[in-house]
Amino acid sequence: MNDSITLLPPVTNPEKIICIGLNYQDHCEEQNKEPPKEPMFFSKYNNTLVGPRGNVIAHQITDKIDWEIELAVIIGKKCKDVSREYALDHVFGYSVAQDISARDWQKQRNGGQFLIGKSMDTFLPIGPSIVHKSLIKDPHDLEMVCKINGVEKQHGNTNNMIYKIDDIISRLSQSITLQPGDIILTGTPKGVGMHRSPPEYLKPGDVIESEIQCLGKLVNKVVAP
Amino acid sequence: MNDSITLLPPVTNPEKIICIGLNYQDHCEEQNKEPPKEPMFFSKYNNTLVGPRGNVIAHQITDKIDWEIELAVIIGKKCKDVSREYALDHVFGYSVAQDISARDWQKQRNGGQFLIGKSMDTFLPIGPSIVHKSLIKDPHDLEMVCKINGVEKQHGNTNNMIYKIDDIISRLSQSITLQPGDIILTGTPKGVGMHRSPPEYLKPGDVIESEIQCLGKLVNKVVAP
Repeated sequence: MNDSITLLPPVTNPEKIICIGLNYQDHCEEQNKEPPKEPMFFSKYNNTLVGPRGNVIAHQITDKIDWEIELAVIIGKKCKDVSREYALDHVFGYSVAQDISARDWQKQRNGGQFLIGKSMDTFLPIGPSIVHKSLIKDPHDLEMVCKINGVEKQHGNTNNMIYKIDDIISRLSQSITLQPGDIILTGTPKGVGMHRSPPEYLKPGDVIESEIQCLGKLVNKVVAP
Repeated sequence: MNDSITLLPPVTNPEKIICIGLNYQDHCEEQNKEPPKEPMFFSKYNNTLVGPRGNVIAHQITDKIDWEIELAVIIGKKCKDVSREYALDHVFGYSVAQDISARDWQKQRNGGQFLIGKSMDTFLPIGPSIVHKSLIKDPHDLEMVCKINGVEKQHGNTNNMIYKIDDIISRLSQSITLQPGDIILTGTPKGVGMHRSPPEYLKPGDVIESEIQCLGKLVNKVVAP
């Protein structure tokens, strides 16, 4: 790809970026946690969005920056109080995302609330495009691979999700009106840096490759502030 | 006021709504909590915004809806890595806000993350206007009163804030670029319903009056879904 071209994220100004934690069975197991009895939702702000070749900033206030490949769902139609049966009618399509996380801020530094650890500038690479749902036979059967500097770190499948996409949308819509453009990140499989032995974190110069079957690949570089 | 006129919130589409928890000394004391060693930030989505006479929906999935009068800070200039000394230069003005909260979802139902309990539709009445900072002598010396059905429940002063506005902005700007229109809610004084004996919660028909010195008053009604 010509380096003189900057690819923007395929959604630039969603009303909401909604994330779910602990939503892959194997990601719960790698940290010896029971799957949650109800979904655990948290958020990212729009300052996190960068395109499929955008840089991830290694902010000076953290040295615990981690990767999380995730399937992103893009809402296509306004949606309130929808049942599981009709939930997927409100999806426009799917994309690849990286829920970049500063683990110290996610876990210890902000009183247990994930917000700051998840919302630092550039912490959500997404793209390269939105693939319309008509082209995806089953969003719950997609292989996903995340490599750091060419070495495979996560290799999962969306069939490992605990709360499925229709269930997530239906539950959210009980109290939060979803709007076209809203992004829902559906959780990450095992293999994140924090739970490796010893733990591994990202540093300037690292290259993150994130690929999901049928959806394409993101290539993001970690850079100094 | 003529009921045929609907007042919108004075900011309708901020990039970010950033809130801080446990930021009044007397609100920490009423729940026997130590003041946090660092600020605890959380978020609300834009679906929460309603105007100064807007209705607050009593969503069916909760019966623990509570009030929190707060001073809102509206950012006026883009801001990254700002020191405390220059932080207030990036403020446009101030407004009155209600950080409406579903306590069951804030505390128990979403794995400890505040997001859902804070972000149900209509959970952020704000207004009636933004008062420019030039008209406020000291934002850390404003009386604030919240009444429910005419009975005073909260009566505080912004001088009771633990982390001051310049400190909040400076800390946030270390990793999150603030944009014009961003709303920062600065915490609530004692007197919330959850910590009363017995606890009190809002129900359809209740009227919430929220007034801050020099900034005006919100009057919001609680309505059935």
